[in-house]
Amino acid sequence: MKKIILVTLACIPFGYLVAQNDEPDLNMIQKIRQEGFNHSQVMDLAFYLTEVSGPRLNNSPGFRRAANYTKNKLSEWGLTNAHLEPWGEWGKGWELKRCYVAMSAPYYKPIIAFPKSWTAGTNGLQTADIVLLSVGDAKDLELYKGRLTGKVILLPRIDSLEPAYVADASRYSEEDLKEMADWKGDNEANQSNKTDGHNIPGKGYTPSPGRHELSGAMRKGALTYSRLKQFAREEGAVAILSTNPRGRDGTLFVQGGGPWAGNAAENFPDLMLAYEDYMMLQRMAQHHIPVKLEMDVKTQFQTNDLQGYNVIAEIKGTDPKLKQELVMIGAHLDSWHASVGATDNAAGCAVMMEVVRILKTLNIQLRRTIRIALWGGEEQGLIGSKNYVRQHFMDTLTKRYNAAGDKVSVYFNLDNGTGKIRGLYLQGNMAAQPVFTKWLQPFKDLGATTITLQRTGGTDHLSFDAIGVPAFQFIQDDIEYDTRTHHSNMDSYDHLQPGDLKQAAVIIASFVYQAAQRSEKIPRK
Amino acid sequence: MKKIILVTLACIPFGYLVAQNDEPDLNMIQKIRQEGFNHSQVMDLAFYLTEVSGPRLNNSPGFRRAANYTKNKLSEWGLTNAHLEPWGEWGKGWELKRCYVAMSAPYYKPIIAFPKSWTAGTNGLQTADIVLLSVGDAKDLELYKGRLTGKVILLPRIDSLEPAYVADASRYSEEDLKEMADWKGDNEANQSNKTDGHNIPGKGYTPSPGRHELSGAMRKGALTYSRLKQFAREEGAVAILSTNPRGRDGTLFVQGGGPWAGNAAENFPDLMLAYEDYMMLQRMAQHHIPVKLEMDVKTQFQTNDLQGYNVIAEIKGTDPKLKQELVMIGAHLDSWHASVGATDNAAGCAVMMEVVRILKTLNIQLRRTIRIALWGGEEQGLIGSKNYVRQHFMDTLTKRYNAAGDKVSVYFNLDNGTGKIRGLYLQGNMAAQPVFTKWLQPFKDLGATTITLQRTGGTDHLSFDAIGVPAFQFIQDDIEYDTRTHHSNMDSYDHLQPGDLKQAAVIIASFVYQAAQRSEKIPRK
Repeated sequence: MKKIILVTLACIPFGYLVAQNDEPDLNMIQKIRQEGFNHSQVMDLAFYLTEVSGPRLNNSPGFRRAANYTKNKLSEWGLTNAHLEPWGEWGKGWELKRCYVAMSAPYYKPIIAFPKSWTAGTNGLQTADIVLLSVGDAKDLELYKGRLTGKVILLPRIDSLEPAYVADASRYSEEDLKEMADWKGDNEANQSNKTDGHNIPGKGYTPSPGRHELSGAMRKGALTYSRLKQFAREEGAVAILSTNPRGRDGTLFVQGGGPWAGNAAENFPDLMLAYEDYMMLQRMAQHHIPVKLEMDVKTQFQTNDLQGYNVIAEIKGTDPKLKQELVMIGAHLDSWHASVGATDNAAGCAVMMEVVRILKTLNIQLRRTIRIALWGGEEQGLIGSKNYVRQHFMDTLTKRYNAAGDKVSVYFNLDNGTGKIRGLYLQGNMAAQPVFTKWLQPFKDLGATTITLQRTGGTDHLSFDAIGVPAFQFIQDDIEYDTRTHHSNMDSYDHLQPGDLKQAAVIIASFVYQAAQRSEKIPRK
Repeated sequence: MKKIILVTLACIPFGYLVAQNDEPDLNMIQKIRQEGFNHSQVMDLAFYLTEVSGPRLNNSPGFRRAANYTKNKLSEWGLTNAHLEPWGEWGKGWELKRCYVAMSAPYYKPIIAFPKSWTAGTNGLQTADIVLLSVGDAKDLELYKGRLTGKVILLPRIDSLEPAYVADASRYSEEDLKEMADWKGDNEANQSNKTDGHNIPGKGYTPSPGRHELSGAMRKGALTYSRLKQFAREEGAVAILSTNPRGRDGTLFVQGGGPWAGNAAENFPDLMLAYEDYMMLQRMAQHHIPVKLEMDVKTQFQTNDLQGYNVIAEIKGTDPKLKQELVMIGAHLDSWHASVGATDNAAGCAVMMEVVRILKTLNIQLRRTIRIALWGGEEQGLIGSKNYVRQHFMDTLTKRYNAAGDKVSVYFNLDNGTGKIRGLYLQGNMAAQPVFTKWLQPFKDLGATTITLQRTGGTDHLSFDAIGVPAFQFIQDDIEYDTRTHHSNMDSYDHLQPGDLKQAAVIIASFVYQAAQRSEKIPRK
């Protein structure tokens, strides 16, 4: 039966008929599979996005290298008008130039550490004692007046490491997927699934956020972290150290250490340590065993261009009536800084680039225009995509899509790590369910079966969804995303799964093709 | 029923009667439990053995600090004749004084690295290109003549990282334990269990040993690693780098980099890198992307005392007829160097010290003499215990126990990580089965139930077993031993499990007590 459809459809130019009834174009899908699985460039793209470009912290030199690489590559493939599009003033670039931390007394031990982004360096190699700061509120800081000069500060932690009885890597089971498929709406029991697909019960490993002695005071507002750092700076301390039991075995999770605005003052040196190293220092201090730390941290701010950028390019549509309409795809190009953002989100960028490469290589005449967007500023709050949507598609009065936004049929996003696609979050768009259900059918053999009404959050489809443009994120296997790679120093190329990325590119290329050829736009909510 | 026995036995001095029929002395066990669980010092001992002493590579300053600490602590508790006992010339001490490795071009990235022990440093900070050496045999090295000066050498790897679908930590299931209990002997199907209890089918995670392009040639003997290093030295290379996919997520496994003999030449700088970092360098080289490495490695050899040492102490027996006989317990004090050897084997040392502390604290009059031995040189081939046994207990002609060895009733060893005791390996000693089965019965509630005929290897009980003295290693839960801690940079204090170590101390203290009071020695094989 399927074979007959395939033969029949092969005779229909551009698949007009199939788009009308949303039957997938199996002939075209076969070509896409062939190109995507047998001639994939997705890992090569990922390599240049990650290890060749370096960390892609927004506006950093690594981000700029990657942005230029993607622009050039998209142009090279024949996409139209590939460009870095500024979306307004954002802030300073920052990059690490040196990071050396070790305990040098009572014996020598290297320490795994990484500064938070947008923090200052140590002004050369410092050798410092450590101080375990014990305060209940901001007033207590006075007790340390005159005692922090030349010292490195730790906050006493009250958590501990548990053995890792749950595997770092996992894939959705049939039960997990069934639960997502069966999800009916926002009742209380389902609340936890509403904004994050990763929180499916039983899925993955969500390590404790950890606690230090000041957590309580900080929650109550009796002391802020920035007040603490201000005091440390005033007192002439060398640096403040942090950790978290999520970061273990040499992995550490680290994000920003303060404001990035163009006029912001440099932030006080603030480093994340591997949990085991931090706790060793704490125990030494608690037992009054003298410790010396060596630290040499050098960071560099870039202020020559404070604009934020997205990378945009197009494959022009060919249907006179529909080529003004857009099918958009995107992923975010920026990353955190402690590794090269392989799963967050070079994976998504490489897959979306591979999608347009496949479509260009197959030289398919697409009715609608395809626009690829590689966003900046996602990690600081989806800023690149929000600004893009605001500037291109939003009616400023109603905050809903304007006439230009009405031309956007759909936006597809990929930003949940390296895991293959298991389906799609409908984001509450019931009307789109029959369409995507049909489009997904040919990919059962690749493990993609599930259309869920669930919403998922945390990434750039929200910027489109917010103005009423249909926007979707795919369901992806978690692999090691929550446990090892997401915002850690281990978000590196070797944690990418080639087979999964190829599968994602094939499925998204097919969805993009179907969306481009469909008579109607994807239904609005 | 049990309560009645308990009351009855409490009236019998020294438990003479119970020893004869091997019924465990439940009254004494209750006291041991009370002391071991409610007044434990095992974690404090572990802290001083690990983080306060530092890495305990044999003959290193850290080993000496730990040895002196244990000697003093054992004396302080009232043990007799606590001393560092030399067992003959062994070789050089070595310790790390500085380790800094980073990629400085095309952008900056810190690299997680650790030198192999007994290797030389880099003579200050070096900035070097990398060379991916591709040779089939020793002759091919000539192709690189003149091309390695000032370079860092990598060997091309042909392995990759797989997602970690199996948890790092595990405990034996009831099925695992039943399989061990049911084990009958050395038939082929059971062969894999013979020497290593860790290899129970389905247990734990045994990561691939990994491969590089020269693995084949080295297996065939067409090239040796020492020939390669000799060539690198002759050519003026800076260092050679290694890795292995076992070491991932910031964990790396690293051991020795050459001979430690007093007259051995310094070994060429040879470092282990975290797998992700190494593979990045390899990919950059393969894509001809220029890379600069910064390396500053300083190591220090100690040659002032080439003797190897064990730490020995005793609790003297009180029974005139039996006090010449020994119940021995031991664990090894030395460790590898990239962390502080917490699970390998500060855990065992802390437990064995806690055992004698419990016995001393309870002021029990023990019939036989208890001797505790904390071995040196275990990691280089059980050298400390082998020499001790040879010098004290072995007939040099027959290689079996001599008259002094005949006085050793039993030797108990603990050296399989931090995991609690689940039972005991009989090491093929069928005659001891009924004795230990009875002694273990009171610890069912603590999860220790299994007496297996299996042998287990890799640690110091083998030195006693080899001369025919009954010698046993306990079955321990693996926790993260094979996956994270064993010989890695993550063998640190936070990976110790306090509850497990307390349990082990309680059970071993009870076994030692029973063995000390028993009318007969433990039966020989």
